[in-house]
Amino acid sequence: MTDPVRAGANPERAVLSVNSRFYAAFEAGDLDAMEEVWVSRGHAVCIHPGWSPVVGVSAVRRSWAVVMANTPYIQFILTDVSVSVLGDVASVTCTENVLAAGEGSPTEGFAGGKAVTTNVFRRSTDGWRLWIHHASPVLSGEESDRDGE
Amino acid sequence: MTDPVRAGANPERAVLSVNSRFYAAFEAGDLDAMEEVWVSRGHAVCIHPGWSPVVGVSAVRRSWAVVMANTPYIQFILTDVSVSVLGDVASVTCTENVLAAGEGSPTEGFAGGKAVTTNVFRRSTDGWRLWIHHASPVLSGEESDRDGE
Repeated sequence: MTDPVRAGANPERAVLSVNSRFYAAFEAGDLDAMEEVWVSRGHAVCIHPGWSPVVGVSAVRRSWAVVMANTPYIQFILTDVSVSVLGDVASVTCTENVLAAGEGSPTEGFAGGKAVTTNVFRRSTDGWRLWIHHASPVLSGEESDRDGE
Repeated sequence: MTDPVRAGANPERAVLSVNSRFYAAFEAGDLDAMEEVWVSRGHAVCIHPGWSPVVGVSAVRRSWAVVMANTPYIQFILTDVSVSVLGDVASVTCTENVLAAGEGSPTEGFAGGKAVTTNVFRRSTDGWRLWIHHASPVLSGEESDRDGE
C-alpha cells in the first residue's frame, strides 16, 4: 500500500487516510491493523464512549482487544468531519454514525447510535499515527454548531 | 499575573497552568477569562458532555455563554491528570469530578458526576491556548487503565 505521507500528498489527505484506516481496522476487528494505526511507544490516550481514559500504548492495545472481542459487528458512517493540521500534529473531529451488534457492556458501539470523536495524530518517521482517541455518546438531539468559515 | 510561558518555566507546567485557568474561568462563570484561555482565531473545537461538536472560535464562545448561563454553580476536582507536550502542541487528559447545580438541559456539569476530558493546547505568540476541549460523561464504574510507565 502506498503511504500517502511518503508519496508527498497534502497532510490533510494523509491524516484523513489514516483516520479511515482506524475505522476500517475497527470494522474488520483487525487488532494488528489497529495497532499499526497507533503510535508505537510512549504516551497514547484512548477514551472509549463512557469509559475512563486508557493511557499508554500497551493499555490501549489491551482495551482494543476487549472492545473487539465484544463487538461481533460494527459499521461506521462518518459525518461532520473536520481536519486541522498544525506542524507534526493533526486533529480530526467527526460524528460516528454507528450500526453495531454488541454483547455485554457498552463499548465503542451501540445499535443505531451516534458518537462524537476527537482523533489527534502525530507525525513521526512512521508517518501519521493516532495519539489520542476520544469518543463519546451524543445525548442531545442538537445538530453541531459551527462558524461560517 | 506572570505568564509561565514567558517566564521560561517548563512546558508541562505552563500547559497545566493554562489548564487550571480554564477550570477557574468555568467555576467563576467568567466568559472573558474563558475567552482568553482559547485560541483567538481559526480552528477550535469544543465538545461539551453529550453535545455534538461546536466548531470555530465564535461558535465555541457562544456555547460557553449558554453553558455558563445555565450553570449557577460548578466546582471541579481534577484527578488522573496526564500531560504530554509535543513541540507546539500539548494534551492534557483528566477526570473531572464535578459538583454542580444546573438548570435545564445537561451541560458541562451534573451533580456529583464524573467526566473525562481531553484538552489539546497549541503554543502561539500568545502562549499556550486551548485548541480542542472534549468532555464526556463516564458511564462505567471502572477505574482508568494505564501502563506502568
